Amino acid sequence: MPKALEGIRILDFSRFLAGPTCSLILGYFGAEVIKVEIPKGGDTFRTHPPFTPAGESYFFVSMNRGKKSITLNLATEKGRQIARELVKKADVLLENFSPGVMEKLGLGYEELSKLNPALIYASISGFGHSGPRSHQPGYDIVAQAMGGLMAISGFPDGPPIKSGASIGDSLGGIHAALSILVALQHRNRTGEGQAIDISLQDSIWSLAAIEHSMVYFLTGKAPGRLGNAYLYSVPFGAFPTKDGDVILAVNTADEWNRLAGAMGRKDLMNHPKYALQRERIKYREEVIALVSAWTKSLTTAEAVKTLSDARVVSSPVPAFEEVANDPQLLSREMIVEVEQPVSGKLKVPGAACKLSRTPGDPTRPAPALGQHNEEIYISLLGLKQQELKKLRDEGII
Amino acid sequence: MPKALEGIRILDFSRFLAGPTCSLILGYFGAEVIKVEIPKGGDTFRTHPPFTPAGESYFFVSMNRGKKSITLNLATEKGRQIARELVKKADVLLENFSPGVMEKLGLGYEELSKLNPALIYASISGFGHSGPRSHQPGYDIVAQAMGGLMAISGFPDGPPIKSGASIGDSLGGIHAALSILVALQHRNRTGEGQAIDISLQDSIWSLAAIEHSMVYFLTGKAPGRLGNAYLYSVPFGAFPTKDGDVILAVNTADEWNRLAGAMGRKDLMNHPKYALQRERIKYREEVIALVSAWTKSLTTAEAVKTLSDARVVSSPVPAFEEVANDPQLLSREMIVEVEQPVSGKLKVPGAACKLSRTPGDPTRPAPALGQHNEEIYISLLGLKQQELKKLRDEGII
Repeated sequence: MPKALEGIRILDFSRFLAGPTCSLILGYFGAEVIKVEIPKGGDTFRTHPPFTPAGESYFFVSMNRGKKSITLNLATEKGRQIARELVKKADVLLENFSPGVMEKLGLGYEELSKLNPALIYASISGFGHSGPRSHQPGYDIVAQAMGGLMAISGFPDGPPIKSGASIGDSLGGIHAALSILVALQHRNRTGEGQAIDISLQDSIWSLAAIEHSMVYFLTGKAPGRLGNAYLYSVPFGAFPTKDGDVILAVNTADEWNRLAGAMGRKDLMNHPKYALQRERIKYREEVIALVSAWTKSLTTAEAVKTLSDARVVSSPVPAFEEVANDPQLLSREMIVEVEQPVSGKLKVPGAACKLSRTPGDPTRPAPALGQHNEEIYISLLGLKQQELKKLRDEGII
Repeated sequence: MPKALEGIRILDFSRFLAGPTCSLILGYFGAEVIKVEIPKGGDTFRTHPPFTPAGESYFFVSMNRGKKSITLNLATEKGRQIARELVKKADVLLENFSPGVMEKLGLGYEELSKLNPALIYASISGFGHSGPRSHQPGYDIVAQAMGGLMAISGFPDGPPIKSGASIGDSLGGIHAALSILVALQHRNRTGEGQAIDISLQDSIWSLAAIEHSMVYFLTGKAPGRLGNAYLYSVPFGAFPTKDGDVILAVNTADEWNRLAGAMGRKDLMNHPKYALQRERIKYREEVIALVSAWTKSLTTAEAVKTLSDARVVSSPVPAFEEVANDPQLLSREMIVEVEQPVSGKLKVPGAACKLSRTPGDPTRPAPALGQHNEEIYISLLGLKQQELKKLRDEGII
């Protein structure tokens, strides 16, 4: 299969989750990702639980599939010098240190772009590289809070709540990958590189603002937390059943009439208060009570069947275990296997970006620490075996 | 400012949220987005609340900035014929109809790629274009449920909860934009187009699976909902204060010791039970009780100050109103103004993908319905004024 990003070399100084998400995705499509790790221990994620029975970090493996690993000690001048040599041969540099760290090492964009004007230099940080709070550390949960997503997630009478997934880190990495691809388009035409500055807070805000900022900008007051409801539609959300919840969503008058039919309530069809969304929304609580009374009389399976037969959008809320065995996700290769040298076959998530001619490959193994030192330092940089030995002895690689 | 995607023409049949997110982002970077709408009424989102005082859908404006609008009735053979002519002049086609709709119109990938082999054809749908459930409708909330994110979001003793934002739609759009950019790289080298098939469920699963799938694959049992906690760290999450909540996160032994110092609990420093994460995690409830007792004695502002001084990652959980006025977001142009012909100046979210040399422009206005009919049909397709009049009279545009 052809690889869309073949020949793109990414020098990846990133650790943890956000940066590695970016290089994971670009690696799926054939970019050569050279993960630069500290000589003793490497990426902290190598010790992140859970562990495979063979003792590898399953989390690290999942996030670093298909990458090459080299070791390099940036705390030494010799190490930084080697980094600069690598930069000359790279298309993209990726890092998610706190803002200022790379500059202090002499590896900031200004300096490196002089060595390689075509370099695309992508940074991911909690709050970005500019602004009054740029130097504050920003974990995923801080971004979810400071980006406004926690304020609008949860129930009206409950606490603000973060997503069960690290969506700030993930989205930061995805935004970085997208930005690198935009920058490659510019570079293809002009030969010019540039700097990319992704903030986890910006990323979360861009999600949170879509639905909630307009009401705030219009009225000075934002809608509060709505649980599983939607500000602009009713009935919409998760409704209780005998044995769980059922999702349903109704927008048009036709959908309302079909729901009324499914509920055996012909009297509610074309009802002046309920048929049109703009009227119905005024009776939110009334509508929710009507629909809940009906869903509570059914099991989730019965409710989904009845609603689907009536062509009302609905679904169960499956447990994670069920989702991980969903025939739909399995048929779309969203759960795949990687053959890991130490740990053997491991199940991992597949690639969500599906291209027919240049599909991504999420099944390549993650590297051992420094596994590609010889390949990169000897074949790419032209060092000799004895130089490599010396660098190793001196703790530089 | 140079535009990285200048010269890329996107024929955009998408409506609502997921597809328009994709073309919004690519439009920021200079792609020419031609939004194809039905002649009477256009994209349903044009009637989606909230409305500006002048009566425009604020939501529509926000999602369709910088795009061109043409009208075209695909229910007529003449309309479909014009669509095929436009396809010959497009680089990218974007659509988020239910799978099968474009094929029934004779506008599926197989047919259109014969007219234009370089065409990149991007589809976004609830469950994707393959698999046993491909034909089921999938709104954002259905994807959040069926992708497993709801199952892992919320409190252990509470109901599953969806994110307050439509992150399935947003991420589906972002994944489509990323995939189009990958496909452009391949096309730049080979001249070949391809089909892209994005599923909202796949997109949500790829977020949810990152942290939770590994435990499930190892043990056959997934961790349940954890509220604002993190499976692998404690203390981590939102802790109650006198007047709200404070976020804090502790990983290393140093961070623990600094937290203990901030709490005035030198006895907890280097404590055999608590100093190391791998030990501390065994006493999750105990640690949470210890930290909560302390945070409850402070206001949020006091807690954030004390923790920041001790270099422990922390933040408040600001209300949406505060986030929308955050000096950090403002300084990074994450809230910008668009000058809309009918409604005047409107605040809208900025662009999260920040590139130094080819920045995105999120400040161009959204189009009126059919505003660009003359430009596209006459200048691009070469139709004559009287032909345009006839098409208009026949309800084709």
